[in-house]
Amino acid sequence: MKKEITQLQQKMAEMSIDYYLVPTSDYHHSEYISNYFKCREYLSGFTGSAGTLLVSQTQAWLWADGRYHIQAQQELTGTGIHLMKDGLTGVPTLSDFLKECMETGQTLGFDGRLYTSGFISGLKRKLSAKQILFVYDKDLVQEIWKDRPKLVAEPVYVYPERYAGTTVSEKIAAYRDYLMKYQADCQLLTSLTDIAWLFNLRGHDVACTPVFLSYAFLSLKEVILFIQEGVLTQEAKEYLQNNGIETRDYHSFYDFVKSIEHVRMLVDYSDLNYCCYQSLSDTNTLLRAAKYTTSAKIIKNDTEIEHTRACHLRDGVYMTKFMYWLKNTIRKRSLSELEAAAYIDQLRLSDDLALDLSFETISAYGKNAAIVHYRPSAESNTVVEAKGMLLVDSGGHYLDGTTDITRTFILGPITEEEKLCYTTTCRSMLHLANAKFLTGCRGSNLDCLAREPMWELGIDFLHGTGHGVGHVLSVHEGPNNFRFRVNSGNLDAVLLPGMITTDEPGIYQAEKFGIRIENELLCKKWKQNQYGQFLEFEYLTYAPIDLDGIEPDLMNEQEKQWLNDYHKKVYEKISPYLSKDERKWLKEYTREI
Amino acid sequence: MKKEITQLQQKMAEMSIDYYLVPTSDYHHSEYISNYFKCREYLSGFTGSAGTLLVSQTQAWLWADGRYHIQAQQELTGTGIHLMKDGLTGVPTLSDFLKECMETGQTLGFDGRLYTSGFISGLKRKLSAKQILFVYDKDLVQEIWKDRPKLVAEPVYVYPERYAGTTVSEKIAAYRDYLMKYQADCQLLTSLTDIAWLFNLRGHDVACTPVFLSYAFLSLKEVILFIQEGVLTQEAKEYLQNNGIETRDYHSFYDFVKSIEHVRMLVDYSDLNYCCYQSLSDTNTLLRAAKYTTSAKIIKNDTEIEHTRACHLRDGVYMTKFMYWLKNTIRKRSLSELEAAAYIDQLRLSDDLALDLSFETISAYGKNAAIVHYRPSAESNTVVEAKGMLLVDSGGHYLDGTTDITRTFILGPITEEEKLCYTTTCRSMLHLANAKFLTGCRGSNLDCLAREPMWELGIDFLHGTGHGVGHVLSVHEGPNNFRFRVNSGNLDAVLLPGMITTDEPGIYQAEKFGIRIENELLCKKWKQNQYGQFLEFEYLTYAPIDLDGIEPDLMNEQEKQWLNDYHKKVYEKISPYLSKDERKWLKEYTREI
Repeated sequence: MKKEITQLQQKMAEMSIDYYLVPTSDYHHSEYISNYFKCREYLSGFTGSAGTLLVSQTQAWLWADGRYHIQAQQELTGTGIHLMKDGLTGVPTLSDFLKECMETGQTLGFDGRLYTSGFISGLKRKLSAKQILFVYDKDLVQEIWKDRPKLVAEPVYVYPERYAGTTVSEKIAAYRDYLMKYQADCQLLTSLTDIAWLFNLRGHDVACTPVFLSYAFLSLKEVILFIQEGVLTQEAKEYLQNNGIETRDYHSFYDFVKSIEHVRMLVDYSDLNYCCYQSLSDTNTLLRAAKYTTSAKIIKNDTEIEHTRACHLRDGVYMTKFMYWLKNTIRKRSLSELEAAAYIDQLRLSDDLALDLSFETISAYGKNAAIVHYRPSAESNTVVEAKGMLLVDSGGHYLDGTTDITRTFILGPITEEEKLCYTTTCRSMLHLANAKFLTGCRGSNLDCLAREPMWELGIDFLHGTGHGVGHVLSVHEGPNNFRFRVNSGNLDAVLLPGMITTDEPGIYQAEKFGIRIENELLCKKWKQNQYGQFLEFEYLTYAPIDLDGIEPDLMNEQEKQWLNDYHKKVYEKISPYLSKDERKWLKEYTREI
Repeated sequence: MKKEITQLQQKMAEMSIDYYLVPTSDYHHSEYISNYFKCREYLSGFTGSAGTLLVSQTQAWLWADGRYHIQAQQELTGTGIHLMKDGLTGVPTLSDFLKECMETGQTLGFDGRLYTSGFISGLKRKLSAKQILFVYDKDLVQEIWKDRPKLVAEPVYVYPERYAGTTVSEKIAAYRDYLMKYQADCQLLTSLTDIAWLFNLRGHDVACTPVFLSYAFLSLKEVILFIQEGVLTQEAKEYLQNNGIETRDYHSFYDFVKSIEHVRMLVDYSDLNYCCYQSLSDTNTLLRAAKYTTSAKIIKNDTEIEHTRACHLRDGVYMTKFMYWLKNTIRKRSLSELEAAAYIDQLRLSDDLALDLSFETISAYGKNAAIVHYRPSAESNTVVEAKGMLLVDSGGHYLDGTTDITRTFILGPITEEEKLCYTTTCRSMLHLANAKFLTGCRGSNLDCLAREPMWELGIDFLHGTGHGVGHVLSVHEGPNNFRFRVNSGNLDAVLLPGMITTDEPGIYQAEKFGIRIENELLCKKWKQNQYGQFLEFEYLTYAPIDLDGIEPDLMNEQEKQWLNDYHKKVYEKISPYLSKDERKWLKEYTREI
């Protein structure tokens, strides 16, 4: 057994813990975790972005999802850890496995800050017959990880009102109205994007997400921000003071939570971490409700929308310049996936308002593109040649907004099948983007507009059609999205004007090719009449869709019109920012079909 | 104040009841109620099929939905009852009204058999701050309604296995497996369609629904059917005995419920009536779960499907003969809505296997068709002439299956707008019917396929696109359906092979015209591949869609193909059962466009 696991098992034995869980998470359930939180990777050696390690006093198992079955198999070789290929028939889920293996009266340990209270409640229900003791206040990894990295503590700065559109005092006032609606006194916030949005502050503690490690407490009387010492800029300090916001040390949060008594508190169990929940005194009344921030931050205000349009325009210019470079370079020489990624990345990061990439660029050539979450690395870095297709999914955080765009580029001859799939993917994207719909629709009502052109061919893409996009927060933001598999526990939001959602259907043929085309859509008002308020989408993304992949005979007149209208706008918006050669080329690549 | 209300108020005063609720319901929450249960109508004089009467010691209010605002206004004139136009802005819901008006510590009375426990729980939560006393065991109307009709008690007969496809013992065994899955001992059944399905019995106690008044108790050891005395046919008596099913008197049910002790019982709060729920002893453990029957009866077995196809074929012949008669008669003379309804009704009821209509036929001419729930009556019975359109929504219960079909017939010249709306309605029906989709889809995922052709024009039909259809039970059966307004509490079922759902979009222009085209769709398997099991629909309904309303230039090639394919099958299936003249006419009316 890998020595780190053996060390953990010794600690477990000392504390009489029979099973210990190590998820991939931080205290805030962020999408990306910093090195301090990479306990599962430290213990197991598995470097994927998701997975859960379970350790008993004699064995260890790692659950990894379909993206990582192959990688985990390789990385776990020789560690003595059993790989559990999540999602495969016959492989039990973690909770089913625990239900099966744990004996009555045994002890299950974990760091309660790494799990939501909702998840642990579910697990408790599942294991109820076994009378399991849950030990949640032990970070055993801390005790064995000698050279554990420090918590990241980057500067935290004020996000200017001219980009945010709404002041912190307006947001706090609205939050208090929300509390009063529920006759509640207060709510705890642990989500970093919620806190960054609410306080109009930004930082750089999480990869590709301009947020900072923090907790917050908001009541009808006070607002307290728990933040690491020394990270606030002078301006941010004064700003918080001027807005009556108290700051306390990040590490004092759980003691503070224990001290809260006799209040009516709103609790979002899908968000609040279990340790926080357990720290709450019985004298409080807990009222189940989503956080105000969840529903408020997904409706972009007019200022945010105006800036988002502006940053998408610049982003579209970079994508267009990249496409021009790529299509011209590949005719002369081969390049690599990483070189292509570096080219678009440097275009974005050279922008005056650039903050960061909004996620690590996916640059996937040929059959690599069939792996939906593929990222090129020094090892995999495939040579890109003048044939087949290159899929590039990328985006940026700018001070004025966040972008996410996918284009699949035709680099040379492609097969009839590839052309059919490319054209169908384009049709799928267009069908959803051109929907008109009544207020009340959710993304799950509209998702099939994108899937139907593929389903008619017996093809599906096995991922969501789109996700919400945060405003200089996380590029993945819920609960607005496009997907069809919903249940009563995970319904997507009703679509409302001001929401931004991606539209990114794709077709993936294992070992052959992968195609995805992604535009961001802004939801806005259309007609209002006796039937109600109709809504529609506005494209935020403007960059050519490679016509070399399009077979016009496979599209009906309406679909051709949709594509031509889009390309006309692409030319109008993007061409003023191009060189003469680029402009001439763009004219050709946005021609009517 | 109307004298019946005054009498009720006297009873309320005697019993210290401050407010008394009279809903439109029976003890089983049936879709239609028999005369015995028409308490709201008796007290208020309002004859609509839905609405709730609330009486205080000095006043009375009636909530009626949009279908009945005008009718209720007329019928309540002079009664002293305030009309609450449900759905209009500014009109409080019943529960909001009670929360506003009732004073702390007051008493609210109602017959607890007429409300689900789920509804009353919701009301209790709403009124929790007021400490309201709920008196649920008083049927005050019984005490003042001197000539109250008797409970209907029609003969109850065995529904033959050759039509049911599954025996009662197989169904009971499956129900017991279901109980064991939840580690439960038993469940109470109060829904008449559930009981009729489970026991393979049918009756005639509820209009247009071949069911019978009953309750049932099903445990791992025993099965008891509570049924009115003397209604079982000799065959049914022996059948129940042979299957080990005990029968008891319908009226002894609540005493029986009180006697159940120390069991683990599954409870479906959206179904179990409040009186029943309140009668349960505290020694029982209640486990929240839907009834087995709910999910089982919506998946039609192969026998039911085969018979359903057969009855739809005959039903399609009747509709086609009706259309021939209608289109030919109207050229010679005018007729009335009722005459048209009577003509199709007698065609259906002359069928050898006919049991009943599956609902009262809607025959709505011209602007009457814009009223979605319009039914012709002796007063409204409009003259039908050789112009405009007649909408006929009708169906039958046959021993071998249930049908529901809507056609809108062109009787003479129609406007361009009408042609646009007719063609669009047809396109909407076709788009949904021709969907291909992955297992996991719900009706709410597909609903927009029907709406999108209308939404593109800024039109909606403000009702569901379709409902599940019971097999010789209720023509409206859930929880499979097509609609887009869902929330976590009312999600529709995941579509599965064997489900039957109607596809009935429409366009309604107030004071002008109404169009609806309805086919029933059977869900069945299509391709299976690496993406999963795809599903598709099969038409059950075969009758021409009036080509006089179709403008081919408004349809794309695929849509025309869909319509031509459908009409080709209509001719193939229906023409063998027609006279020579009818057949010649059908050839023309199923021609390719």
